[in-house]
Amino acid sequence: MPTFLDSTDTDFEARFAALLTMKREDSPDVDDAVAAIIADVRKRGDAAVCELTSKYDRLDLKPETMRVTAAEVEAAAAQVLPEDHAALELAAARIRAYHERQMPEDAQWTDETGATLGWRWGPVDAAGLYVPGGLASYPSSVLMNAIPARVAGVGRLVMCVPTPDNILNPLVLLAAQISGVTEIYRIGGAQAIAAMAYGTDTIAPVDKITGPGNAFVAAAKRRVFGRVGIDMIAGPSEILVIADGDNDPDWIAVDLLSQAEHDESAQSILITDDAAFGQAVVKAVDARLKTLERAHIAGPSWRDFGAVVTVRDLNEAAILSNRVAPEHLELAVADPDTLATKITHAGAIFLGQWTPEAIGDYIGGPNHVLPTARSARFSSGLSVMDFVKRTTMARMTPESLRAIGPSAVRLATSESLEAHGLSVQSRLDKLNR
Amino acid sequence: MPTFLDSTDTDFEARFAALLTMKREDSPDVDDAVAAIIADVRKRGDAAVCELTSKYDRLDLKPETMRVTAAEVEAAAAQVLPEDHAALELAAARIRAYHERQMPEDAQWTDETGATLGWRWGPVDAAGLYVPGGLASYPSSVLMNAIPARVAGVGRLVMCVPTPDNILNPLVLLAAQISGVTEIYRIGGAQAIAAMAYGTDTIAPVDKITGPGNAFVAAAKRRVFGRVGIDMIAGPSEILVIADGDNDPDWIAVDLLSQAEHDESAQSILITDDAAFGQAVVKAVDARLKTLERAHIAGPSWRDFGAVVTVRDLNEAAILSNRVAPEHLELAVADPDTLATKITHAGAIFLGQWTPEAIGDYIGGPNHVLPTARSARFSSGLSVMDFVKRTTMARMTPESLRAIGPSAVRLATSESLEAHGLSVQSRLDKLNR
Repeated sequence: MPTFLDSTDTDFEARFAALLTMKREDSPDVDDAVAAIIADVRKRGDAAVCELTSKYDRLDLKPETMRVTAAEVEAAAAQVLPEDHAALELAAARIRAYHERQMPEDAQWTDETGATLGWRWGPVDAAGLYVPGGLASYPSSVLMNAIPARVAGVGRLVMCVPTPDNILNPLVLLAAQISGVTEIYRIGGAQAIAAMAYGTDTIAPVDKITGPGNAFVAAAKRRVFGRVGIDMIAGPSEILVIADGDNDPDWIAVDLLSQAEHDESAQSILITDDAAFGQAVVKAVDARLKTLERAHIAGPSWRDFGAVVTVRDLNEAAILSNRVAPEHLELAVADPDTLATKITHAGAIFLGQWTPEAIGDYIGGPNHVLPTARSARFSSGLSVMDFVKRTTMARMTPESLRAIGPSAVRLATSESLEAHGLSVQSRLDKLNR
Repeated sequence: MPTFLDSTDTDFEARFAALLTMKREDSPDVDDAVAAIIADVRKRGDAAVCELTSKYDRLDLKPETMRVTAAEVEAAAAQVLPEDHAALELAAARIRAYHERQMPEDAQWTDETGATLGWRWGPVDAAGLYVPGGLASYPSSVLMNAIPARVAGVGRLVMCVPTPDNILNPLVLLAAQISGVTEIYRIGGAQAIAAMAYGTDTIAPVDKITGPGNAFVAAAKRRVFGRVGIDMIAGPSEILVIADGDNDPDWIAVDLLSQAEHDESAQSILITDDAAFGQAVVKAVDARLKTLERAHIAGPSWRDFGAVVTVRDLNEAAILSNRVAPEHLELAVADPDTLATKITHAGAIFLGQWTPEAIGDYIGGPNHVLPTARSARFSSGLSVMDFVKRTTMARMTPESLRAIGPSAVRLATSESLEAHGLSVQSRLDKLNR
């Protein structure tokens, strides 16, 4: 049974707070193992990567067979059904169009002292994309990670995907081809993250690593952070649906299940101002769970972490949603635009009953890599911004230095940083001579 | 003696690579101690914070005396010399003006299917600013961290500054007042980071923590990352100066020393196309070190980590600088704008001989919190962007769902995510009925 809450109950605040702090993830502590793997790859490079791949993926590689060849990519792409190929192309085009609008602009201006100020954006030189193998090998994730990098102007885009027992996913390779990945290696786990961060003889190092992965990959990304940039450590998926009574309960049920089916630790929450509707959705969920292929995952997620919250009105729903700061927020209400203005924290908002969250997972255009575990309070989904960095620029004229330099000298002196002051004062002295 | 390199030497590549990978920081491993402090603050809240403050700062606090009162801030501000006050105000105004231009814009558009797409930016609710006590208590850092937060629209801005032996720095309090800090607590170390991340009875939790600190603070920030956002873990300061022979060697010498005086682990590098000028700068550095107040810090930094690199031409200088990806880059050359176009990785660029880096530390306008340790390859300095986050928006119409929904269903099916497909298909079924 999911959790049932009613905002008019006397113990509501305590129970809602408990829902917020519910511990859903119980990831194994693999940090020591990962530290050893990274150290091994740093020391022995390709040899370590090949040995670890043999051990974990039952795949014997040599340095010269680590890379997936262009012919292999072509052969895989040719296996994909035309309808699937077309769907991937449409998704890629829409994601590209959305992300092209995100490119930040350079700026330059002259201030009242004559100083020229501004900044410039530029792409990272090389990005690495991790794609999990096996069940969670999603072509849509390839598009969502690779396309923003290419739009940002990243020249070298490396993808690592483990191929246990040498099984390649044709859709993943096609997605890589469509989205402009430049190198693909059939390696995975912490060894792949280490190889991308530190480089080996075969794999040149990258500057930024993104993409989802298991506990080993997450721990490795944490460890190489600083050496390279990373995107985020994603937690289990979440959806919060705010729905009024004027919805088809089955639509909302499958929307809730669409995140629950990702992971037993996923969380699906319905907030409604119509208690009877909430009950109808619960019934519809139960009905769908009878036949759903992934009921063995979605069922436990719904039972352990699902929740149905009845509220007095939609304003209260917005306030509670902001406390959750959900990864995905559906506003299945008559006037979603007005309700959206009250939302301050959410990774992505899906407005109106014709916008199921799953549209955003594949083809809407916005990125599906979004902040989980309440981190939408302070962070954003993946975007072009993750693959660019800003260089600030300043150019003083003698006049502008004369205008503001003395204040810099005062502040340097107050901080007892004499050389800071001297570097300004020595120039002022020349001007005053 | 600093390192001397010449790009025409046969062993240049190996020696330059060694300069790049030189290990400068040797921070003590305080991670276990920090983990214990955080756990204690989470468990016992204010009581733990007060006990730790007594232990580390020799200051006995009660929960009701942790916060610096408005009267104390006023009294401290009144002690500041009018000239220093004016310099801080000028710096704040210039930093504010620069950062106001960084506010990112919301976007919304309708695509060819009739779907409305876009995104919206919003500030974090509460930010926490850490300010070190003692020697490294810099009012300029208060401005550089607090002003971007306020420009971003952050409502609640908390500052923690340890006051060992109960000594408050009046300039730091004045800087906090000028830049709009809303709460100040006289606590520091890992206990302050834990209090801001998890909250206590006295200190409500924040969503994002920024600011420099010692090894305890850095380890604590790493540990609370995920619970809250953090800015970056800053390493020792760095400056790279590209100078042609047409410069005053003493100006360049004090510029190099202005970063060397921060920290024995700081690194100052000169790249020049004029070997004789390089020698003249070295002489000028030695002369300045004879009298510099902080020669005991700047001297070891210059000796152990300083470098003078002679190159064939400025194009080569740019290529080497990009490999360094310096935090601060001065272009003291005749045509700095042209040289700047060749720079791909740098935290901040200071153009021309009238723009000493120290101007940027205080009053230029750009932020002085910048990526160190080659991380300018993939990250940016502190900005308004650190205090806002993006929510993506999508709204389908029945027509747009009919246009792109079938492709989403195909992709969901190919990823074996049935509920994802159902949430789109159930709506398409209604449309097709």
